[in-house]
Amino acid sequence: MSFEQIRLDKHEGIALLTLYRPDRMNAFTGEMMQEIITALDECDADDGVRAVIFTGHGEKAYCAGADLGAGAATFDYDKRADKQALLPDGTPASPIGEDGTINWSHPLIRDGGGRVSMRIFEAKKPVLGAINGAAVGIGATMTLSMDARLASDNARYGFVFARRGIVPEAASSWFLPRLVGIQTALDWCYSGRLIPAAEAHEKGLVQSVHTQGELVDAAIAKARELTGDSAPVSVALTRHMMWRMLGAPHPMSAHRWDSRVIFARGRSPDAAEGVTSFLEKRAPNFTASVANDYPAFGEFEDAPPYS
Amino acid sequence: MSFEQIRLDKHEGIALLTLYRPDRMNAFTGEMMQEIITALDECDADDGVRAVIFTGHGEKAYCAGADLGAGAATFDYDKRADKQALLPDGTPASPIGEDGTINWSHPLIRDGGGRVSMRIFEAKKPVLGAINGAAVGIGATMTLSMDARLASDNARYGFVFARRGIVPEAASSWFLPRLVGIQTALDWCYSGRLIPAAEAHEKGLVQSVHTQGELVDAAIAKARELTGDSAPVSVALTRHMMWRMLGAPHPMSAHRWDSRVIFARGRSPDAAEGVTSFLEKRAPNFTASVANDYPAFGEFEDAPPYS
Amino acid sequence: MSFEQIRLDKHEGIALLTLYRPDRMNAFTGEMMQEIITALDECDADDGVRAVIFTGHGEKAYCAGADLGAGAATFDYDKRADKQALLPDGTPASPIGEDGTINWSHPLIRDGGGRVSMRIFEAKKPVLGAINGAAVGIGATMTLSMDARLASDNARYGFVFARRGIVPEAASSWFLPRLVGIQTALDWCYSGRLIPAAEAHEKGLVQSVHTQGELVDAAIAKARELTGDSAPVSVALTRHMMWRMLGAPHPMSAHRWDSRVIFARGRSPDAAEGVTSFLEKRAPNFTASVANDYPAFGEFEDAPPYS
Repeated sequence: MSFEQIRLDKHEGIALLTLYRPDRMNAFTGEMMQEIITALDECDADDGVRAVIFTGHGEKAYCAGADLGAGAATFDYDKRADKQALLPDGTPASPIGEDGTINWSHPLIRDGGGRVSMRIFEAKKPVLGAINGAAVGIGATMTLSMDARLASDNARYGFVFARRGIVPEAASSWFLPRLVGIQTALDWCYSGRLIPAAEAHEKGLVQSVHTQGELVDAAIAKARELTGDSAPVSVALTRHMMWRMLGAPHPMSAHRWDSRVIFARGRSPDAAEGVTSFLEKRAPNFTASVANDYPAFGEFEDAPPYS
Repeated sequence: MSFEQIRLDKHEGIALLTLYRPDRMNAFTGEMMQEIITALDECDADDGVRAVIFTGHGEKAYCAGADLGAGAATFDYDKRADKQALLPDGTPASPIGEDGTINWSHPLIRDGGGRVSMRIFEAKKPVLGAINGAAVGIGATMTLSMDARLASDNARYGFVFARRGIVPEAASSWFLPRLVGIQTALDWCYSGRLIPAAEAHEKGLVQSVHTQGELVDAAIAKARELTGDSAPVSVALTRHMMWRMLGAPHPMSAHRWDSRVIFARGRSPDAAEGVTSFLEKRAPNFTASVANDYPAFGEFEDAPPYS
Repeated sequence: MSFEQIRLDKHEGIALLTLYRPDRMNAFTGEMMQEIITALDECDADDGVRAVIFTGHGEKAYCAGADLGAGAATFDYDKRADKQALLPDGTPASPIGEDGTINWSHPLIRDGGGRVSMRIFEAKKPVLGAINGAAVGIGATMTLSMDARLASDNARYGFVFARRGIVPEAASSWFLPRLVGIQTALDWCYSGRLIPAAEAHEKGLVQSVHTQGELVDAAIAKARELTGDSAPVSVALTRHMMWRMLGAPHPMSAHRWDSRVIFARGRSPDAAEGVTSFLEKRAPNFTASVANDYPAFGEFEDAPPYS
């Protein structure tokens, strides 16, 4: 797979995904969105990848936000569409009919930043952000469904949407208040001011702060700590269960789900190896495959009630 | 509009709502509830108001809680009702029938503090609390659906309900654990002890602590920071989306909602002005009106799923 | 009631529940699960008990996790079942049929740790943990639905599931991210590393840290602070409302529920005593009984909407 606007480098179990538009401060585009999604599909399918680290090219920006090259029409997706064109399935390319009626279910209306956030949300490997500079707009919000954010000391976050006349996107209204609390989330998003790395760390958005030279190595070390002694399928299931249960109304949903998964995983060779290696005081050698063995666990999410 | 138990002063875009019962430590009454709701209706309809700040009259109390003038019958709403009277629509004024049966859907049973909390929850402007002294009972819980709380150094919070034989009200069981975590929320509400401003700050309930002389000015400065460079309709939408998504089970709800809002706002003159002013390095001049242009966005909350 | 694997000591309103398997570091078993549930049933029914404190016997461990005496088959519940046996109601004792089909609703599949967590979740008295040493696996997760955790300075938490090839259980995917945030919860559960008491305190899991000699006394003092001046039924209702509303999608659920409860409790002798004792500046003497008077409040949880 070859990419134009990102780089994907795999090395000893870690995939480093670098946003790569050197002349545009790694600004976000529809093409970049598609490449990120493709790269995550590839990482999920590759058992050689234990974790994914996002970073940005250069020393100035992680991602400066949506590319503003279209000027005042940047967020006017309809103005930028070819109104005569058709999508592959025959749907008109514009969501706005000739009479001005808007087709709110039209695919063009789906937020591209949100497609990235939700794809990260569904990832089967831990996803870390190594935020190496300005993270503004979608550059900020795309990091919220990652499992952890490490930042360089020159990094700064900008939830600038209200200053641009739009609103926080990429499902950030769901993620941000859960990460930093509603009081801080509103403070940052109303004002749109730039948040220094130190404040992002103090408020819990960023897990640790590093010099720029040490940032990516620190993220790699953290990724190894998270995955080194743990069964890959256990990590994937833990990721899925925790993120889903973060929003679930009642803990009984978790009890029903984890009961089934504990039973299924408890019978697996991984569970036998996990206990045996512990009793023998040696490193475990887990064999179950995320690519092949994970899908069967999806059925437990809507586990039926106990009688 | 004239008020008896509150004061409402508007000055350069900020509405200062002062709880005003000088001889009763600003204790809460049904009349005060109605006046607060009316004042917020007025502020939402007035595009000249960018933010609302609640404070209390005097140097001793923000609000001492429910007025205990009725003594032991304070919380016995039925005992205080005129059992022979009828409501305007002909419903008996008492929720308890002659045979003792309780009509649990009777309007008298609806908690007045909760009506204030929920009205603040629905506000279209940022609402800040400048907590200038004792905030006890409903004086504490009415501040929880505000966007931020600033406190004077002599302020103290008291979630005293269990000491009075009742329970936390004003929907505080939903708000408080989201603001300070369940462990702290239970600690404060079981014991009913008074919480000093410093502890409220440390636990995340209060955003900042000030001398009493500087408190209101600090709140005004914060309100200007939150709204000064941001589009009013964007702020109103951000407020609505973040508070609603704080409780939503799944981030896909946010993705569906913000996709539609980004498309609608992206076509607006505000979005063109937001990008243009940024590229021209000047302050923006947003024109959309909360009073007139906001209501159309309500339809997106239950946005249909993507196909 | 006599117990084998726990101790239950009641003294001046506090029940001390000690996990007690001196030769097994208080490791968890099905028998221990049943005894904990029985003990909590007893405490809820006894108005002489105002709060429950969990601790572990000895100076080394609170609970070392599932008993690994069965080695590699520890989590293979089916392998350990007698496949020819029948449950009392005639159901086959194994959830796996002769053709290998799994009956996912079989009672054996229900996670025992989760049964403890959910029983604590439903308790009518404050439940505190006095974590006196290693709390590993179910030893860690069973503490998450408690109202507060105090720890000795030698305590350490281990969410080791992924290292054993299984997943976090006991509904911990619901509780843990709400207590420490999703970023920290994933950090701890992916890696499975041991978390010292100081880190658990800093991240908000543990409320306070003590020397081992002072731990239980500190927990008793906290339990008295939480309950000393508060009405028992008010405390039970507060517990139930806060934990349930922590997951509720919308604050209107809380407004509907607490409106009904405020009306019902407001008419009670406890509410009259609460206000009267406050006005008379004396300690209150509450008379309502959790054992007898609480059940009537269950009906309000699904309170109907306001018209």
